[in-house]
Amino acid sequence: MILHNERFTERDDAFVDIEDRGYQFGDGVYEFIRVYDGICFEMDSHMQRLKLSALKIELPLPYALEKITRNLTRLVEKNGLMNGFIYVQITRGVSQRMHHFPGNTTSVLVAYTQLGERPLEKTTHGIQAILTEDIRWKRCDIKSLNLLANVLAKQQAKKHGCDEAIMHRGSTVSEGSSTNVYIVERNVIYTHPINNLILNGITRIGVLQMARENGLRVVEEAFTVNELLEADEVFVTSTAIEICPVIRIDQTLIGTGQPGLVTRALQQAFEHRIVFNSGTN
Amino acid sequence: MILHNERFTERDDAFVDIEDRGYQFGDGVYEFIRVYDGICFEMDSHMQRLKLSALKIELPLPYALEKITRNLTRLVEKNGLMNGFIYVQITRGVSQRMHHFPGNTTSVLVAYTQLGERPLEKTTHGIQAILTEDIRWKRCDIKSLNLLANVLAKQQAKKHGCDEAIMHRGSTVSEGSSTNVYIVERNVIYTHPINNLILNGITRIGVLQMARENGLRVVEEAFTVNELLEADEVFVTSTAIEICPVIRIDQTLIGTGQPGLVTRALQQAFEHRIVFNSGTN
Repeated sequence: MILHNERFTERDDAFVDIEDRGYQFGDGVYEFIRVYDGICFEMDSHMQRLKLSALKIELPLPYALEKITRNLTRLVEKNGLMNGFIYVQITRGVSQRMHHFPGNTTSVLVAYTQLGERPLEKTTHGIQAILTEDIRWKRCDIKSLNLLANVLAKQQAKKHGCDEAIMHRGSTVSEGSSTNVYIVERNVIYTHPINNLILNGITRIGVLQMARENGLRVVEEAFTVNELLEADEVFVTSTAIEICPVIRIDQTLIGTGQPGLVTRALQQAFEHRIVFNSGTN
Repeated sequence: MILHNERFTERDDAFVDIEDRGYQFGDGVYEFIRVYDGICFEMDSHMQRLKLSALKIELPLPYALEKITRNLTRLVEKNGLMNGFIYVQITRGVSQRMHHFPGNTTSVLVAYTQLGERPLEKTTHGIQAILTEDIRWKRCDIKSLNLLANVLAKQQAKKHGCDEAIMHRGSTVSEGSSTNVYIVERNVIYTHPINNLILNGITRIGVLQMARENGLRVVEEAFTVNELLEADEVFVTSTAIEICPVIRIDQTLIGTGQPGLVTRALQQAFEHRIVFNSGTN
């Protein structure tokens, strides 16, 4: 089943109007939420970010956030999903095409679940990445449906047999095409500060909290491409990839070419966080 | 009727899948084509640009461009459209959500017509505009469905009772939220050169050609916000707004606050172009 506005319906009965502003303008926002052992992970953080993204583009939620949250949880139950994801998006709804807000539309919510195992192969052995110029707009803090730049960057990575494209504006590293990026230098973790140029990742919030709880120093400062390539460790985080070592970038091996100790420590802390999550139902 | 892939179908029978990449990523391209007196205006230019936009994001056309062109012309005929527009978009099709190209999808084409009279009130008297920072991505040459920045800029203009938002990167004027922008200074026309920061407008191509044919000097060089505000004349062009004087920007009157002579001359030439178009069927 999927959730279409307030209604639970069969996947094949769910269609979108050709004049939905999500389809014509990417005029909408979304979240991608992990489900571990049947329980939504970091649900409140995702819901708060959904609300904030919507607010930033003056997109009215179709109904109260609490009810959206309840419906998403029910969707997981109805589908008997144990391990996987919820995808939820909200668009500004259907209207004759015009650039400005039509004013009289009703926001459209679509949500569905998908099966997905944990990316253990990747988090255990690390992934390879390419570098690419960050050509995105200047509101990357909004989790919007305007993702073509991310799509093109990720496609470029895939073409090179890599899992991620690490993006930089000039010499400054911003983030990955679908991840936040971190370096470790002498046991200090560096990552781009939260502003309009990166997404405030939910996994990022957790990682920084865990790092500090474990006595690791965190510096939210942007770093350069050179600092990235010369770092002791590099890792990326996202809802899908969790905390994942990056062992090679283009032709450069990172550190020893093996997942680093700080990354491993954070991964361990993350395991506890997941187990704790399972216990909170 | 609308055109859905190769099929002419009723508007209400046309739906889009929730996992169409146009809906989730804005992974698609589009064109908006003027119909005057039942005849598509500058059809070949629009079709060539559609093909080029698709090529730039490695999006396969669902079928040959010649056949798409024929089908759009048939759509106009079937709907008996005399004055209005064709909207056509092509997305990468339906697939389980992943950032990179799924590889096995079939592109989805949707096209429909809409009634629309010429914007005579605006082209006669001129419009007012606001200035706003250009926060878009760095591939504005692609006519893609990632239009949220344009939407937000246009909305800002509407909030201020204006028809257009003129965008600038730093002090350099790029283009309007849905138009190309020009200034006239001592009878010379200046406009941003064609590169990755603006769309190669079909009306722009015509305007520059007409200007040169009429002995006007055209300089394709970017100008600053100050030069814009101090220009003798400012005008914008697009398929929808044709050639339209801008008589005020924020609080600044442009020139005398009346449409200028060069703009008027170009508008006259444009009328001939439309009449010529009508005679070409």
